[in-house]
Amino acid sequence: MTASFELHSRLQEDCALVGDLPCCRVLLARDARYPWVILVPRVEGARDLDELSAEEGLAVHGEMIQVSRAVKSLFQPTKLNVGVLGNIVPQLHIHVIARFAGDDAWPGPIWGAHPPLSYPPEQLSARAQELAQALGLMINA
Amino acid sequence: MTASFELHSRLQEDCALVGDLPCCRVLLARDARYPWVILVPRVEGARDLDELSAEEGLAVHGEMIQVSRAVKSLFQPTKLNVGVLGNIVPQLHIHVIARFAGDDAWPGPIWGAHPPLSYPPEQLSARAQELAQALGLMINA
Repeated sequence: MTASFELHSRLQEDCALVGDLPCCRVLLARDARYPWVILVPRVEGARDLDELSAEEGLAVHGEMIQVSRAVKSLFQPTKLNVGVLGNIVPQLHIHVIARFAGDDAWPGPIWGAHPPLSYPPEQLSARAQELAQALGLMINA
Repeated sequence: MTASFELHSRLQEDCALVGDLPCCRVLLARDARYPWVILVPRVEGARDLDELSAEEGLAVHGEMIQVSRAVKSLFQPTKLNVGVLGNIVPQLHIHVIARFAGDDAWPGPIWGAHPPLSYPPEQLSARAQELAQALGLMINA
């Protein structure tokens, strides 16, 4: 992990902060279509999972599992979708999305399917807080 | 891992066999648009990564990293895309795709973007063999 970690401006704009796990910053995408969490390993310069050290990789894997279970428990989705794309935003980030049969992009992928749908502000912060609690984090947004 | 493992018919049809790593079956998607590898953990009934035991999860993570490095080394892509979707095929499977700036779906995701483009048969088996060698596997297709 890097002391000088800085979140990419695009992730900063498109997401609300949930909090920091030991290795990853946890974000909630500002798209009310889906419960959509993004983990950003605080490792400066990383673009792909295979660029992490073995220790960092295991930590990120563990936090991805922890977030997956929290998302399942909170939202009871039909299916989880997990993805590391980064074709547009180069900073390594891992999507964990709760998918539901019949959601706006079902059964296709969500990326690029629709423009984001704004949350009412109080619902965005309520959902971020609910995630923070499920992850054992104090919300620090 | 499960003795009774059976590959989903859709994966069987859409992919060529590369070989078996200790935990995952490794496949090459029959789509010449992208070097597109699919790992299928031989764990009967698993749909999401968080359903694996801790030991299975670490093994799958390690094999995903191994495949990622082999794909990078062979194809020198602009970016790797890694995804676990499974909205259509429920059997747990992990996509590892070499993406290139300007490829048919760039910078969007590949899933659902285009119908698959057939490989000339000799190129499909050559690529599967090249992957098997890079992974230290004897090809058993």
